Amino acid sequence: MALRYLSARLAQQIDDELMSAAGAFSLDQLMELAGLACAQTLAKVYDADKHSRVLVCCGPGNQGGDGLVAARHLAMFGYKPTIYMPKPGSKDIYQRLHTQCKNMKIPTLNDDESLHTALKASDVIMDAIFGFSFKGPIRAPFDAALPLLSASGLPIVSVDIPSGWDVEVGNDAGVGLNPDVLVSLTAPKEGVRLFRGRHFLGGRFIPRTLEEKFQLNLPPYPGYEQIVDITEATQKL
Amino acid sequence: MALRYLSARLAQQIDDELMSAAGAFSLDQLMELAGLACAQTLAKVYDADKHSRVLVCCGPGNQGGDGLVAARHLAMFGYKPTIYMPKPGSKDIYQRLHTQCKNMKIPTLNDDESLHTALKASDVIMDAIFGFSFKGPIRAPFDAALPLLSASGLPIVSVDIPSGWDVEVGNDAGVGLNPDVLVSLTAPKEGVRLFRGRHFLGGRFIPRTLEEKFQLNLPPYPGYEQIVDITEATQKL
Repeated sequence: MALRYLSARLAQQIDDELMSAAGAFSLDQLMELAGLACAQTLAKVYDADKHSRVLVCCGPGNQGGDGLVAARHLAMFGYKPTIYMPKPGSKDIYQRLHTQCKNMKIPTLNDDESLHTALKASDVIMDAIFGFSFKGPIRAPFDAALPLLSASGLPIVSVDIPSGWDVEVGNDAGVGLNPDVLVSLTAPKEGVRLFRGRHFLGGRFIPRTLEEKFQLNLPPYPGYEQIVDITEATQKL
Repeated sequence: MALRYLSARLAQQIDDELMSAAGAFSLDQLMELAGLACAQTLAKVYDADKHSRVLVCCGPGNQGGDGLVAARHLAMFGYKPTIYMPKPGSKDIYQRLHTQCKNMKIPTLNDDESLHTALKASDVIMDAIFGFSFKGPIRAPFDAALPLLSASGLPIVSVDIPSGWDVEVGNDAGVGLNPDVLVSLTAPKEGVRLFRGRHFLGGRFIPRTLEEKFQLNLPPYPGYEQIVDITEATQKL
């Protein structure tokens, strides 16, 4: 049975069910596990010796929260993350996660000029700008930031959906990032069917009943790992 | 610099600081990471093929919450956990974590008779009964449960402090469990100085500033792991 690709609607529905009274998960829990999986994916591909300087780009939604969690774990793993967050989210959790990063002495940038400078002093980018609730067009300041990220030539690890890609159609408009690595959360989204880089899955928290209800056909994760490499499973060349 | 062993008061202070407005962590986050570390420790030592049936014993405090998180992750890892929880905690988070376990079809026992039966059908015990806020004497129903667990002869993985041990003095009274494996959270407690089984450390979320303030001298964790084996470091034989 093939891994299922999710529409934006279905991805939202799964999140809603997990966090409903019946699902009983808190956003804090899910974001912690998602962000940890993102950090571990980056660490799996880019070691801390040669790629210590990670620019973690955070959008204003939940995916930006995943990025903040990832930045904190990356610092724990020995990386030197810097956060680019020109438009902080307004949710309380976002503030708390940012405080946790500041307590780890992780610096935060918030304008295009500092982004330009920071890119020259970075080894790899984590793209946690837009998630599965993204609807184009790309608004300021990210309309200016995405081309800067692309032009840097740095390797990019995207979370869930590469920023600028339509969640269901993909990068048809050609304005999205072209990541080297993608970490899909819970299950890949329809828009990444044609993604041909290294592809990981994270978000190992879907109860079997939910997996069966939505026929996700998730791959087995190895041992106690929080991520699984699904490059081969998703790329039948 | 030697790893620091914590008094009960200092362990509480570190928890309080992490969850203060300045520390900004939520209990949901810390418990998720702690419980994950407990589950990973058990999985590291006892593989799911030969030790699939895990009896996760949960007390009424925060450590019982760690146990519930661990039970859920163990089920994700392919184990078949059963929860023994004769005295459920009253905190809202405890209810939510238990619902998450029920959604994973993890059964729960709550009396000594069913514990007796369950032990015959278990391969390994996770002891998440008493944590660093434990003050003896051991009250019912755990006064009857601990001897049953010991008499089972099953391997035991204890969380933070083996149940029945004084947090600072250890098992002087001789009424505590004798675990094969211990997973200390954030830093080992004074009472486990003489523990001579396999010893792991989890709770990789202490900012460097806090580590330095309390002179914890934590060991380096490998790569992106959430646990580290500190058996050698703690046992200079």
